[in-house]
Amino acid sequence: MSETVSGFEVHDIRFPTSEQLDGSDAMNPDPDYSAAYVVLRTDTGAEGHGFCFTIGRGNEVVAAAIQALSPYVTGRAAPRTAEDLASLHHDLTHDSQLRWLGPEKGVMHMAAGAVVNAAWDLAAKRAGRPVWEFLSAMSPEELVSLVDFRYLSDALTPDEALAILYAAEPGRAERAALLRAEGYPAYHTSAGWLGYDDAKLVRLAKQAVSDGFTQIKLKVGVDLGDDVRRLGLARAAVGPAVRIAVDANQRWDVAEAVRWMAALAPFEPYWIEEPTSPDDVLGHAAVRAGQPVKVATGEHVANRVVFKQLLQAGAVDFVQIDAARVAGVNENIAILLLAAKYGVPVCPHAGGVGLCELVQHLAMFDFVAVSGSRDGRVIEYVDHLHEHFTDPAVVESGRYRAPGAPGFSARMRPESIAAHRYPDGPVWRARANGRAS
Amino acid sequence: MSETVSGFEVHDIRFPTSEQLDGSDAMNPDPDYSAAYVVLRTDTGAEGHGFCFTIGRGNEVVAAAIQALSPYVTGRAAPRTAEDLASLHHDLTHDSQLRWLGPEKGVMHMAAGAVVNAAWDLAAKRAGRPVWEFLSAMSPEELVSLVDFRYLSDALTPDEALAILYAAEPGRAERAALLRAEGYPAYHTSAGWLGYDDAKLVRLAKQAVSDGFTQIKLKVGVDLGDDVRRLGLARAAVGPAVRIAVDANQRWDVAEAVRWMAALAPFEPYWIEEPTSPDDVLGHAAVRAGQPVKVATGEHVANRVVFKQLLQAGAVDFVQIDAARVAGVNENIAILLLAAKYGVPVCPHAGGVGLCELVQHLAMFDFVAVSGSRDGRVIEYVDHLHEHFTDPAVVESGRYRAPGAPGFSARMRPESIAAHRYPDGPVWRARANGRAS
Repeated sequence: MSETVSGFEVHDIRFPTSEQLDGSDAMNPDPDYSAAYVVLRTDTGAEGHGFCFTIGRGNEVVAAAIQALSPYVTGRAAPRTAEDLASLHHDLTHDSQLRWLGPEKGVMHMAAGAVVNAAWDLAAKRAGRPVWEFLSAMSPEELVSLVDFRYLSDALTPDEALAILYAAEPGRAERAALLRAEGYPAYHTSAGWLGYDDAKLVRLAKQAVSDGFTQIKLKVGVDLGDDVRRLGLARAAVGPAVRIAVDANQRWDVAEAVRWMAALAPFEPYWIEEPTSPDDVLGHAAVRAGQPVKVATGEHVANRVVFKQLLQAGAVDFVQIDAARVAGVNENIAILLLAAKYGVPVCPHAGGVGLCELVQHLAMFDFVAVSGSRDGRVIEYVDHLHEHFTDPAVVESGRYRAPGAPGFSARMRPESIAAHRYPDGPVWRARANGRAS
Repeated sequence: MSETVSGFEVHDIRFPTSEQLDGSDAMNPDPDYSAAYVVLRTDTGAEGHGFCFTIGRGNEVVAAAIQALSPYVTGRAAPRTAEDLASLHHDLTHDSQLRWLGPEKGVMHMAAGAVVNAAWDLAAKRAGRPVWEFLSAMSPEELVSLVDFRYLSDALTPDEALAILYAAEPGRAERAALLRAEGYPAYHTSAGWLGYDDAKLVRLAKQAVSDGFTQIKLKVGVDLGDDVRRLGLARAAVGPAVRIAVDANQRWDVAEAVRWMAALAPFEPYWIEEPTSPDDVLGHAAVRAGQPVKVATGEHVANRVVFKQLLQAGAVDFVQIDAARVAGVNENIAILLLAAKYGVPVCPHAGGVGLCELVQHLAMFDFVAVSGSRDGRVIEYVDHLHEHFTDPAVVESGRYRAPGAPGFSARMRPESIAAHRYPDGPVWRARANGRAS
C-alpha cells in the first residue's frame, strides 16, 4: 500500500510570554515564545508534526523557510524506514540553492530540522512507537545510514560510529525497561530567570528541590554583584548538595567570562553554560582552561561541524543538544555519536515551546543505544506551555517519564494553534485591540 | 534639515543563469544568480540600495528576512554619519528576538547585511562620495566606532584597532591617488566553471591572460582525474608565470582535501579555496598543515567570530571577505582589522550578482586606510551581469578601476529589476509559459 504526503501546512504560532518575563535572560530580555510549525498530512489521514522554536519577531521568516521546503516533501511517499528518513534528510539539506543560504546554519537549517522532525513524528506514528523506541529498535547499520558524515571523517568515521553502536547493543532492552520504570533525570530552570525578583527566585528554588530536582539553573551575566547575591541566595536556599548550573546566554567575551566565573566559583556552580558566542570554539576552550567551572554549550550551535570542533578542541564538559536548531533527528544522531566518541556527556537543552517534548526522546535513545549511560546526564526542564501539547512531557520527582504514545510528542492542540496564530489568532487580535484603544 | 527614511521596498530578483552553466562548481551545479534586493527611500527623494546574493531557490526567504527589518529603518532619520551607521548596524544585529534566528549567521544575518549596505549607499550618496572614499575620509576613532567588538577582544581590542588605523593614516591621500591612477589588481574566474568543456576552458584562460590578468581560477573537486587534466591544460595555456588558483567550494573532508591537493600541487596552484566546510576552523588548519598549497576561505564564513578563529588558529593564508554575507560594511571593517592584526592579506570574493560592484569599495578602503598595502592582494572578477547595474564595476587590463560615482555601486537598473522579478517578471513568465506549452 503506497501512502503519499499530500498536505504541507505551515503555521506562525506565538505566545505572549514577554508579559510575565518568563524566559528572560542576559541576552533575551523579553521573549515571546513561538513556533514556526509544520504539519505533514498523508492521503490516508496520518499526520506528522514538527516545528522550530523562536522567541517572537522573525517567526514568519522561519515559516517562509519551511514553506520553501514543501516541494521536497509534498507528493513524496510517506517516510517509514531508516532509508526513507535518510533520503529525506539528504534532500532537505543538500539542495545546492537552499544550502547557499547557510550553509547548514540559521533559518534555512532550522527549517530543514522542523520538516525532518515532522517526518520522524509521522514515521514513528506509523510504526506505533514513540520516537525514542522507534530509534532504539533500529540496527547499528540503519542508524549509521541516517547520518551525514560529510565534514566529520577527521573526527568520526562510519566504521567508528558502527563500533560505538555495536558496543551499546547488549543491554538495550534492559535500559529501555529502566527508562519505563524510572524515567530520566531532569534539572529545573524555571527558578532562575533574570526578570524574577529575589523572593521569587528563592521560593522557586526551594520548590524545585521539594519537587525532587537535584539540579537547578540560574541565568547570569548582566551584573556581577547581582549574580553573586542571587547565587548566594540560591545556594543558601537549596543547600550544598543540590547542583546549581549558571547560564550566561552568550553574554561575555573570553576574558570577561573567565573573570566573572572566577568570582562565582566559590558558590560551586555546576557548569557555566554559553559563556560566549556559540561559534567560538577556541573561545570556549580558553574559558574552560581559564577558570575552574565546567563549560557547557550547544543550544545555539549551528550544526555537527561546530560540535565536532568543540569536542576536538576539548572546549566543553557537556554537550547540550537542541532538538530543533540543527537538521532534526538525523543530525542529532551525528552529534550524539560524536559526543560518545569523545566521552563527553550529553545534557540536552529544553524549555521554549515543545523542546522538552522533543528532546526527551533523543536523550532516552542516547541512553538505550548510543552512550548506554545516564551518568552525569540530565535533561533541562522548564514548566511552560506544556498544556498546549496533546502528549506533553511529564516530569515527576525530578525525572522525565518515558513517553509511551506513538510519535515525537510534537503535536500541538488544534485549539492552541488557532488561538495563538500570529497575527490573526484571537490572543493577538485582543492585544492589538487593547493597544489601539 | 531632517531627512527621514520613508520607504522600504524589497524585491525578489532572479537571473536564469543555470541555462548556460555559468557559475557551476562542485557544490552548485545549476545556480540561478539572484538578489534579495532592498531600496531605502527618503522623504527628500534620496535612495539607498542593498542586496543579498543567492543562487535561486530560497531567495524569497531572504526577502522575507529583509522585510522583517523594515521597522528598524522606516521612519528613522536618514543615516549620514559614522555614529548613525554604527547605531543602525547595532539595532539590526542586536534585536534579541531576530538574533535568536542565527545568532549572527544565515538568512537573518545576510538580510541585516543587505540593509546595512543600503544605508551605506544612501549615506555615501548624501556625502557625494563613493563608499571607499567616504570610509577613507573617516577618522580612526570613527572607524573603530563602527565595529561591534563583542566576541573579538581576545584577538583584537578597540585600542589595537585604533593603533592599526593610526599606523595607516600617513599616506592615505597618496594611496587614494594611486588607486585613481592605477586601480586595484583583479583575478579572473570566468574560465574555470566546472560546466565548461576543455576547449572553452583553454580559450577563456588564454583570453584572460591576453586581457591582462595575471591570475585565474579554476573550479575543482568532483573528479580528480578531470581536475589533473583541466589544471594541466590551463597551466599549458597560460604558462608558468600566471597564477592559477583552485576552488573546491567546500566539497571535501580534511583527508580528502589533503590527498587531492597533494595530487594537484605539481601544477603549482596558487591557493586552494574552500577546501572544506566554512565552519571548520580546525579543519582548515589541518588542510593547511597537511599539504603544500596555500589555503583561502571566507565567502561563506558566517561572521567575524569565525574569521577571528581562522586567524587565531593560523588556518588561512588569505582572507576572502564577501560584501553581502556578513552584516554589511560594519562587520567587514571588523574583519579587515582582524586580518591586518594577523598580517594576512585580504583577497575578496566576488562574482554572483553585484558582488564585484560592492566589494571593490572594501578592498580599496583596506588599501587606503587599514592594511595600507596591495601586496599579494587581488579582487576576484567574474564578467557576469554587470550590465544590470547603473555604476558597474570596470576592469581594464586586469585591474579594477576606482569607482568615482557617489554611493556603493549597488543600484540595479529599474528595467532589469522589472524584467527579472520572480516569479512575475517577464523573463520568468516567459519561461513558465514555455514549460507549460
